Amino acid sequence: MHERLNQFISEQKVAVQQELRQHLDSLDIPERLKASMLYSVEAGGKRLRPVLLLAAYQAYSNDTKRALSPAIALEMVHTYSLIHDDLPAMDNDDLRRGQPTNHKMYDEATAILAGDALLTYSFELIANDPHLTDSQKVRTVQLLSEASGPKGMVAGQMLDMKAEHKALTLEELETIHTLKTGALLRFAISTGASLGGAEPEQINHLGLFAYHLGLIFQVQDDILDVSGDPDKIGKPVGSDEANNKNTYPKLLGLEGAIAKKNHYVHKAKESLYHADAASSYLALLTDYFSSRDY
Amino acid sequence: MHERLNQFISEQKVAVQQELRQHLDSLDIPERLKASMLYSVEAGGKRLRPVLLLAAYQAYSNDTKRALSPAIALEMVHTYSLIHDDLPAMDNDDLRRGQPTNHKMYDEATAILAGDALLTYSFELIANDPHLTDSQKVRTVQLLSEASGPKGMVAGQMLDMKAEHKALTLEELETIHTLKTGALLRFAISTGASLGGAEPEQINHLGLFAYHLGLIFQVQDDILDVSGDPDKIGKPVGSDEANNKNTYPKLLGLEGAIAKKNHYVHKAKESLYHADAASSYLALLTDYFSSRDY
Repeated sequence: MHERLNQFISEQKVAVQQELRQHLDSLDIPERLKASMLYSVEAGGKRLRPVLLLAAYQAYSNDTKRALSPAIALEMVHTYSLIHDDLPAMDNDDLRRGQPTNHKMYDEATAILAGDALLTYSFELIANDPHLTDSQKVRTVQLLSEASGPKGMVAGQMLDMKAEHKALTLEELETIHTLKTGALLRFAISTGASLGGAEPEQINHLGLFAYHLGLIFQVQDDILDVSGDPDKIGKPVGSDEANNKNTYPKLLGLEGAIAKKNHYVHKAKESLYHADAASSYLALLTDYFSSRDY
Repeated sequence: MHERLNQFISEQKVAVQQELRQHLDSLDIPERLKASMLYSVEAGGKRLRPVLLLAAYQAYSNDTKRALSPAIALEMVHTYSLIHDDLPAMDNDDLRRGQPTNHKMYDEATAILAGDALLTYSFELIANDPHLTDSQKVRTVQLLSEASGPKGMVAGQMLDMKAEHKALTLEELETIHTLKTGALLRFAISTGASLGGAEPEQINHLGLFAYHLGLIFQVQDDILDVSGDPDKIGKPVGSDEANNKNTYPKLLGLEGAIAKKNHYVHKAKESLYHADAASSYLALLTDYFSSRDY
């Protein structure tokens, strides 16, 4: 990975993880609930969403303190969605990143409540952040609730479940991805940029950037499942095909999927240029999303 | 029931139900998700929480438009909590108010997502309400997230599960009730009063009022389970005892529970007097909570 980006990601991850632990540790709540929330929050994800938010913020501003609470609120919402998605009634996964899923480590009831608690606490965190003005808090709550609720991520999960074992068109596949994973990525970019002081026109261009970035992320996920290193991606190669999942390689072939991804990288960078952010970390992150091997 | 209160409750219920349906109907979201959300929201509860919020508001103000969104957001949060509580992994209830629970009518995955969606959308609703100032929105999001999250309702549900089939002291029992049902009632009272323009000192007294009102509600619930009319309460008499639940009559005897309730009614009315709300609907609602037969 690009040396400068590598360092940026490490630094932001440390800041995000410190802030996450500090907020959750300080909560005076039932012990088992706290342990279950912390277990999933600290399960060691890539922290892509908060890092993106902080990168979008720093494309327009020099300090970071105003963006930290929204960044960790976003990671909490992402974590809640993983906990609920893993439940037996949903994807029924026993392992995530090689570790027992929350309901396996604790129990189903605790996992449901830990998810509910993380979602709710993310709004509390934003509303109580001393670094944000009331107007910034309201805007952030608006964007986060829209991105994660019934018009966004929850809709994506609902459509995804309905689409299982059904052949989708490319358009239907992209609608699901745009809602299920894209909505939180768009929140990261637009909220980071907006808090950093970007102009409305710049934020418009970034909306298009975020849309393509989300698709790049998903195409690469599908490509790795076909041609990745099982040790790095943490699951056997070919599991999407075995589970009869709708993927880009299935619809377009591997070469077609790679061409599609490259097209999206081109579009994403074009939008970054129009948003005066072509030399920000967002550009390096686009390459990283496109070429990551895990 | 008191004629004047009866009319007040009917009017507020109509307003709440119209507003709930209008907001949910207008959502452009997956059909099955919307149907599942509407199913539980329209399952015909008593709407006690929004009515309380509107009564607290009207104790200090004449119009109602500023309180309507927080009132229906509160009802959505209450509905989400019922959907998740009924799940097989939690209380495993097939029926609620004589109708199939959400996961029985739809399926578990849909019920989990409908709950998640209602919770998230409640914050969106507040953040987008054109009748509230930014400062009122922030305060309402703060109070709602605190009341419903890991420090409030979710903590209560967690402790309640842990307490099953365990004998509790009166103090432990009241801690659970104060979190599990009391937190949303306190939100109703303090948010209604605050939006209506009550002074900080009045709101302090109302906090104590709400605390006692929540306990009155719970004692009466327990009393009805022992001596109520099964046709009215919608479940067989004695089901708490059969399920070995911790209740006031179990700890204090039926007479002791009634005496406790009357003591709380006295305390609640004292607080109302200090909050200059002794002649508001809140006083009539206290009697109603204490003497309701369903």
